Amino acid sequence: MAHEENIVRFGILGCAEIARKICRAINLSPNSIIQSISSRSTEKAKQFAIKNNLSELVKVYGNYEAVLDDPSVDAVYIPLPTSLHLKWAVLAAEKKKHVLLEKPTALNVEELDQILEACESNGVQFMDGSMWYHHPRTSWMKEFLLDPNLFGQVKTIYSSSSYLPPPQFFETNVRTKADLDGLGALGDAGWYCIGAILWAMSYKLPTTVTTLPATNLNSNGVIMSTTVFLHWEEEETTAIFYCSFLSHETMDISVLGSKGSFHVEDLIIPYEEISASFKLTSGAGFADLHIGWNEKEKEVQVHNELPQEALMVKEFSRLVKGIKESKIRPDTRWSGISRACQVVMDAAKASMDGGFKAVYI
Amino acid sequence: MAHEENIVRFGILGCAEIARKICRAINLSPNSIIQSISSRSTEKAKQFAIKNNLSELVKVYGNYEAVLDDPSVDAVYIPLPTSLHLKWAVLAAEKKKHVLLEKPTALNVEELDQILEACESNGVQFMDGSMWYHHPRTSWMKEFLLDPNLFGQVKTIYSSSSYLPPPQFFETNVRTKADLDGLGALGDAGWYCIGAILWAMSYKLPTTVTTLPATNLNSNGVIMSTTVFLHWEEEETTAIFYCSFLSHETMDISVLGSKGSFHVEDLIIPYEEISASFKLTSGAGFADLHIGWNEKEKEVQVHNELPQEALMVKEFSRLVKGIKESKIRPDTRWSGISRACQVVMDAAKASMDGGFKAVYI
Repeated sequence: MAHEENIVRFGILGCAEIARKICRAINLSPNSIIQSISSRSTEKAKQFAIKNNLSELVKVYGNYEAVLDDPSVDAVYIPLPTSLHLKWAVLAAEKKKHVLLEKPTALNVEELDQILEACESNGVQFMDGSMWYHHPRTSWMKEFLLDPNLFGQVKTIYSSSSYLPPPQFFETNVRTKADLDGLGALGDAGWYCIGAILWAMSYKLPTTVTTLPATNLNSNGVIMSTTVFLHWEEEETTAIFYCSFLSHETMDISVLGSKGSFHVEDLIIPYEEISASFKLTSGAGFADLHIGWNEKEKEVQVHNELPQEALMVKEFSRLVKGIKESKIRPDTRWSGISRACQVVMDAAKASMDGGFKAVYI
Repeated sequence: MAHEENIVRFGILGCAEIARKICRAINLSPNSIIQSISSRSTEKAKQFAIKNNLSELVKVYGNYEAVLDDPSVDAVYIPLPTSLHLKWAVLAAEKKKHVLLEKPTALNVEELDQILEACESNGVQFMDGSMWYHHPRTSWMKEFLLDPNLFGQVKTIYSSSSYLPPPQFFETNVRTKADLDGLGALGDAGWYCIGAILWAMSYKLPTTVTTLPATNLNSNGVIMSTTVFLHWEEEETTAIFYCSFLSHETMDISVLGSKGSFHVEDLIIPYEEISASFKLTSGAGFADLHIGWNEKEKEVQVHNELPQEALMVKEFSRLVKGIKESKIRPDTRWSGISRACQVVMDAAKASMDGGFKAVYI
């Protein structure tokens, strides 16, 4: 099975919790398999294989280099802490492995540019691990959003991404350590908000990014909670996002246009695997005497054949196959999206570091 | 009927569109009737009476003073442009008429304080015309919000209030004129957002109010659209509101706590008169492998016996009756709420006028 030509063979660098979900997704995706996994110790990697019922054909390594040196590996999935992305994503590209990189992609855009340059010069595909782009609901929402009669122009966007981890998270998790995932809640939860806002703006960068002075840092100086304001001056469009490790779980986006609006409360991970919904209104107004609305919000249900993370792997592997079989160039759409997110994230960090002033992009 | 002792007899100052809704509400409320109406011309007032099927017993006046001089009037409803509130609300109080005043209550808190002082020294009840406080859904949401186990602490609040009026609105409506409703979208739509946010914070004023530099003013310098940031430093709580005459209709509030959250998209005027709902989650987390949530958002339906505006009139008349019959002092809870809203609105205006800097309250 590992030698079928039309299958993309994945190696996994690191056994983070999120790798469990992606292993399952690789197995669910019809065009990919897990070829090898690795951890800093062979024992840990073996335990991971057992816990996740991986096939006995999957190779288990006690170091990441071995995966990159394995000639049967086509592509790697990298769920390592953000501070390790630059080293391992560049090394992977140099070994001609296609790169599926967990978000946030890097500590800053300079690092990401080195990763993207390595991917481009080595002819390998790049994609970050944001799954929700690949859910069919996202396409349906985009169709509504782009309809000039039903939705009109984007006026304002609100997004929040938050969760309240258990107390030990704040002591031990990499997302609370300046030298590991130094961007904290901004890099983890905020990445999704930034992506969702840019998605709604068709990836046009804002004129300014301003982090608001209500930002909670832990004793390591890592962001635990923040609110950021984005402004597109020409369009007179605004966006706000809130990301936090100190609040109940939210994954909201509401996009308000001149003629319509829509709301989602489970954007990043839908409540259920098999379907998801969004709620829209269009052309709404008051009923006579303002005693109600002329129409209620409508809920649009969207079914999905595969979970969104499997659809992500399927799309990544489709692109990899195209490169392997037809020698076409890697698709740069996904790296462009990652880069736009990273630019806005850097600006939010710079705004905070500069006393919460507006940062022009 | 107009002489029954336990009925509060209303006079209406002005025939604005909103007065139609309140006339209906007065008639629906079991403890109140319309005693007289007025406009700047008798003809306009007569047309209003016909259009709204008012009883032939209702007196029709061609000036506002006549209503205030009518000894059979207990209370007045004042839907005049904001710039006229100070004059007519003070006059009404001096004539011992109880005051139900349309929002925004005044052009600034100094004006409102004169109105409240006149009401207090004349022993008359004051209430502003914000209807949604009186819907039973609001009490249900508050119960959830105050539950330390289900909701926890308020972390962040988002509210939007917007609508897209027809083109002639921008030429002729009082809300676009600096000398009439000079607060524009902030005074009209923003009033509700401020009220909703303060309601969620049990009316504790924020430490700072900052209007964000993406504010649209018309050629008269009146706010057509703006975004405002509120910060409670001690609680580390934040709120954002967006109010606009340039966007599709929204009436959103989402309140995010440490343990739960809730969302409403028809806060100010429910979609339907007879019932309304809100959606909550509490204690939500990821399912195993992060492939979904351990619980979906729940929708709570709340039925209401009377429309919210009739419940508002009923509550106002109940307080008026108490004063008339038992000689108790006016209830200052409602004036306190109005004043808190006005203080935040003034701060938002001051922030804008001062170059979008934070204004400390």
